[in-house]
Amino acid sequence: MTKPHFEKIALVGIGLIGSSLARVIRREKLTSHIAIATRSQATLDEARALDLGDSYADDATTAVRDADLVIVSVPVGSSGTVAEQIAPALKPGAIVTDVGSTKASVIAQMAPHMPEGVHFIPGHPIAGTEKSGPAAGFADLFQGRWCILTPLPGTDADAINRLGAFWEACGSRLDTMDANHHDKVLAIVSHLPHIIAYNIVGTADDLETVTQSEVIKYSASGFRDFTRLAASDPTMWRDVCLHNKDAILEMLARFSEDLSSLQRAIRWGDGDKLFELFSHTRAVRRSIIEAGQEVDLPDFGRQAVASKT
Amino acid sequence: MTKPHFEKIALVGIGLIGSSLARVIRREKLTSHIAIATRSQATLDEARALDLGDSYADDATTAVRDADLVIVSVPVGSSGTVAEQIAPALKPGAIVTDVGSTKASVIAQMAPHMPEGVHFIPGHPIAGTEKSGPAAGFADLFQGRWCILTPLPGTDADAINRLGAFWEACGSRLDTMDANHHDKVLAIVSHLPHIIAYNIVGTADDLETVTQSEVIKYSASGFRDFTRLAASDPTMWRDVCLHNKDAILEMLARFSEDLSSLQRAIRWGDGDKLFELFSHTRAVRRSIIEAGQEVDLPDFGRQAVASKT
Repeated sequence: MTKPHFEKIALVGIGLIGSSLARVIRREKLTSHIAIATRSQATLDEARALDLGDSYADDATTAVRDADLVIVSVPVGSSGTVAEQIAPALKPGAIVTDVGSTKASVIAQMAPHMPEGVHFIPGHPIAGTEKSGPAAGFADLFQGRWCILTPLPGTDADAINRLGAFWEACGSRLDTMDANHHDKVLAIVSHLPHIIAYNIVGTADDLETVTQSEVIKYSASGFRDFTRLAASDPTMWRDVCLHNKDAILEMLARFSEDLSSLQRAIRWGDGDKLFELFSHTRAVRRSIIEAGQEVDLPDFGRQAVASKT
Repeated sequence: MTKPHFEKIALVGIGLIGSSLARVIRREKLTSHIAIATRSQATLDEARALDLGDSYADDATTAVRDADLVIVSVPVGSSGTVAEQIAPALKPGAIVTDVGSTKASVIAQMAPHMPEGVHFIPGHPIAGTEKSGPAAGFADLFQGRWCILTPLPGTDADAINRLGAFWEACGSRLDTMDANHHDKVLAIVSHLPHIIAYNIVGTADDLETVTQSEVIKYSASGFRDFTRLAASDPTMWRDVCLHNKDAILEMLARFSEDLSSLQRAIRWGDGDKLFELFSHTRAVRRSIIEAGQEVDLPDFGRQAVASKT
């Protein structure tokens, strides 16, 4: 695979994902010019202080002018506004992509604004941490993680290949699928886990019988794991919930059905059923470690980190 | 605090907790003799190969004879059987404790068997990983974690102090509370998180629209976090569910009630409500990190571990 090169790359939005892209793009020398745009002056100043780009603008229109590759990294609810804003300034032949966690909604919001001759290819790198903002990014974020492209029928194959090569140069592994299928997959692997995590942290916060201080002190017994996902960016996750509603509601229904069945087994003391479910799930983690998607250390390697620092 | 010394300590059960105790007891020189007992010959051989103790027995009776401190580290459903078995061999004045995740049930199972003159003090170190067996233990497991004692009314204060000093010498911080309150606290901070994790991993495994291979490939987007708790020892967790039923069902009811409300907000597109919940939970993680109960690194420090190895 030849490493791709774009004369100018515009990054619209410079949070965790955008700033990680800026870092890996520079390290891998994938462009001659990184143009950064964000509406927030404070975020723009932070990006400049971190020296993430070659030019900075508080309006996306300026940044995307003459860009060969435009990457929109904003909460999915803002995709339409951004598309409308940048459309008139887009260079013919440019590739426009995004990194949003929902794809059907992003397509519905962005595609109608895209001018003839511009290659709009929705994408989603499956990578992140619970931190947000320009300072949270790092060049290795995409290393070994999957990036899913959901091109529309009839999209120029060469443009898809160039965008694919870009993500591979960023360290990603590449997949392509239909937007609706993507949204179902992400509903179970990402959206439901975040919603459940937010919910349980909320439940624990609201109890009368157990104090907040007790929840915090004894959190190492399991609870703290959930607080990581529940510390993710609220705007991003509000938008995901609003923009992948159907798939999320479907997965929530399945989850609740299974939970009722498990609750019933607890109520009736059905030890065999509990043991069977609890035995079955261990293999899933093993597979994830073997697939290179998880560290092969107990407790996420927390102990290893603690003893090395 | 003076470091306590016991002539002989018996460890009944030598899994993750028992074997971590063996290691820290030896490192801190808390006894002259560690006696290890487990029913499984394979586990006993493994403990011997790891050189965890000074003597090994496949019956607990032999191990506890002449011991000043007996620590029972078995699934909570086996507590009663072990208590009945060791009772006749216990030395007058010995302290008997356990490490089980449920306390009211352990007291109900063990207390009736305890002979006059033996100090039975239930305990629970809030520490662990998803791994099990003698090889999974490590001496630092209890470092900075809390250990909760739930002594019965009228227990000898000097015995409680000696046991507390023992746990502190193992690196623990010490708390004392009523057994029923312990069971409610643990239901929310530990039992519910495990049950939810087992459940979501089960749900993902059963879908028709999303393949198992997709769940594994894209698990870094959130799902993989849950697989850690869901990889915990199935026998231990079956027993916890059977032996802390009431508190668990109470917490499950609260969780489900909150989840229904969240589901409703998603269905009706109530962005303000979603944003409010999602903003509220970030502070909880911050408090846990400040309390020294979590590593202060994004993604549990996975990136730090990966880049150091």
